[in-house]
Amino acid sequence: MSHETSTPPPAQIGAAVASVDTPALLLDLDAFEHNLAAMRAMLDGWHGKLRPHAKSHKCPEIARRQVADGAVGICCQKVGEAEAFVRGGIRDVVVVNEIVGSSKLARLASLAHDARIGVAVDDAQNVADIDRAAGKAGVSLDVLVEVDVGLERCGVAPGAAAVALAQSVAEKKHLRFVGLQAYHGRAQHLRSFQERRAATAVAAGKVRDTLDLLAAAGLRASTVTGGGTGTFQFEVSSGVYNEIQPGSYVFMDADYGRILDEAGKPTRMFEQSLFVLTTVMSHPVARRAVVDAGLKSHSVDSGMPLVADLAGARYAWASDEHGVIELDGPAQVSLGQKIRLVPGHCDPSVNLHDWIVCILGERVEAVWPVSARGASF
Amino acid sequence: MSHETSTPPPAQIGAAVASVDTPALLLDLDAFEHNLAAMRAMLDGWHGKLRPHAKSHKCPEIARRQVADGAVGICCQKVGEAEAFVRGGIRDVVVVNEIVGSSKLARLASLAHDARIGVAVDDAQNVADIDRAAGKAGVSLDVLVEVDVGLERCGVAPGAAAVALAQSVAEKKHLRFVGLQAYHGRAQHLRSFQERRAATAVAAGKVRDTLDLLAAAGLRASTVTGGGTGTFQFEVSSGVYNEIQPGSYVFMDADYGRILDEAGKPTRMFEQSLFVLTTVMSHPVARRAVVDAGLKSHSVDSGMPLVADLAGARYAWASDEHGVIELDGPAQVSLGQKIRLVPGHCDPSVNLHDWIVCILGERVEAVWPVSARGASF
Repeated sequence: MSHETSTPPPAQIGAAVASVDTPALLLDLDAFEHNLAAMRAMLDGWHGKLRPHAKSHKCPEIARRQVADGAVGICCQKVGEAEAFVRGGIRDVVVVNEIVGSSKLARLASLAHDARIGVAVDDAQNVADIDRAAGKAGVSLDVLVEVDVGLERCGVAPGAAAVALAQSVAEKKHLRFVGLQAYHGRAQHLRSFQERRAATAVAAGKVRDTLDLLAAAGLRASTVTGGGTGTFQFEVSSGVYNEIQPGSYVFMDADYGRILDEAGKPTRMFEQSLFVLTTVMSHPVARRAVVDAGLKSHSVDSGMPLVADLAGARYAWASDEHGVIELDGPAQVSLGQKIRLVPGHCDPSVNLHDWIVCILGERVEAVWPVSARGASF
Repeated sequence: MSHETSTPPPAQIGAAVASVDTPALLLDLDAFEHNLAAMRAMLDGWHGKLRPHAKSHKCPEIARRQVADGAVGICCQKVGEAEAFVRGGIRDVVVVNEIVGSSKLARLASLAHDARIGVAVDDAQNVADIDRAAGKAGVSLDVLVEVDVGLERCGVAPGAAAVALAQSVAEKKHLRFVGLQAYHGRAQHLRSFQERRAATAVAAGKVRDTLDLLAAAGLRASTVTGGGTGTFQFEVSSGVYNEIQPGSYVFMDADYGRILDEAGKPTRMFEQSLFVLTTVMSHPVARRAVVDAGLKSHSVDSGMPLVADLAGARYAWASDEHGVIELDGPAQVSLGQKIRLVPGHCDPSVNLHDWIVCILGERVEAVWPVSARGASF
């Protein structure tokens, strides 16, 4: 009963890109490898750890390549994701999120038989529940106290509240207090370099104060983790973070493409490697083409996708299975033509697909399953 | 290789709703049955056909119930959906959308061995391609000429262009010209009754003119199909439409909940039957609760979901796996509490889930696979 709803792969290995069925996720392997190498180069000489956020790709093959490239393991948001990555051979997984409920905690704890498993907390009763689940499974779990450094989502306040919660973790028999989860999600997408740097500096200050209080209480935070694709350079140079969690850097998207560097120009640290391949299925008037990738093939929460291949073309609006492209430029479009879109937001767009079609030049090199697709439970 | 990415069912039949793993799609069967009955009652005495749009539910079990309840069959947007519904026993399926490309057309044609299959067209070359695919498969296909009656998406212009395309269909050996696809998507979500009625009247006028020209050319359009949950009453009373395509009426959503009746009050023709069940996984400050259903559990393209169960609670913003709920009312929330959300837009929200958990009162009555989930190809 659990296997009725998967879709067939949209391409065969060795086939031409032009033969890929659409809509499909395309991964340009050259750009992907460039991004892995660019991250490695930027972290060269840093004595911290790269723990990529696997919620962006949900793909064990990508996680294995990140680990082979120097990542310590991965982080993710949900137990279902952690299960997919442990099953895919990743041996160090941190769920950098709160997990609530006895059945989810039992599943989380059981993963620790096969991998080092961590989880974030922001509530004392939840800490007790996790300890009980770990004890029942006969395992130990790493626990990070999440502090709210500006995101205003989960997490206890920095300072005394964090110390009190860390103390309660440290007292538990089956838990290891390993440090702080201090992710500033709002800072990632601030357009200007200066705003991102300032927001991260404020977060780092809150972390530093909390570390001082922890030390005074005799608690050692061996890990301080946070940072994403928009800010990781600031966490790296902060002196307080020793682990970063970027996810989108392997793919990039239209929204991350809009963040700016110190000179006010688009940041070009990473290349766009991820695309949604789509087909023109209607071209009823000269200035309008309609493609077969709509709301069910990419997520518009951060804006419409960009049209990668046509000058002057604008993806104007999406319905469930249609994208309406306005053609104001000189580009000619024909029915059946395949066009690449840059999704507005990579993470929820990847989650709409079962497969990533990997290309080298104009050939399909591999097709990777998005094994944690839909694993929000 | 095609079966690696499905998720396990979030509930067992007979279990209490409180035990359902989250996030999960919940279907209130009483409300669902009410909606089927309400539609049947509203169409009583009409000599047209109900062909529900199955893109909303993607679930063969629901389609079978619609057919058992009097629907002539279903319509859908993609070949992959049509395949799932024919496999699920539906014997009359119209893809009310343009299908382009030889492999998709071969798949479409092959379905006609097991079911009556129709498709929409807006291009003469595409008509020739469909005829070739049908001939190759040894089948006949029904073809609807799509006319643009105001949506500004696909479709030829009403009038002479539609007649010319219908003529080209009628001349083909393996195609049957059956009529017009005349769906006015923009009209569905206009807030006021008067605006929706006026937009549908304009569309019906364009259809009528086209039907006159078709008749003058000796072409009989036995079917004129269109209309959705927001306007179907106007198509029914138009005198020109003889088939309607509502989809969302079985579920409803926050956006359809905002459309108004003739007196300017929220339309209450249908009940909200679909919910996303979510768990409070963080409650860091008194006025904020964070739930485990974010962008990967419901689609925000038409706005944030509504909180069904807590007075004064507002789902303020979503990240991938979090929903931040602001609590301004008197409601008390506790960690682990399960809360129902009304998704902003049902169709792309359902497409994020593999299973629909059907409840009667506080018990899980059934778990239905969303078999066409992800079938955008």
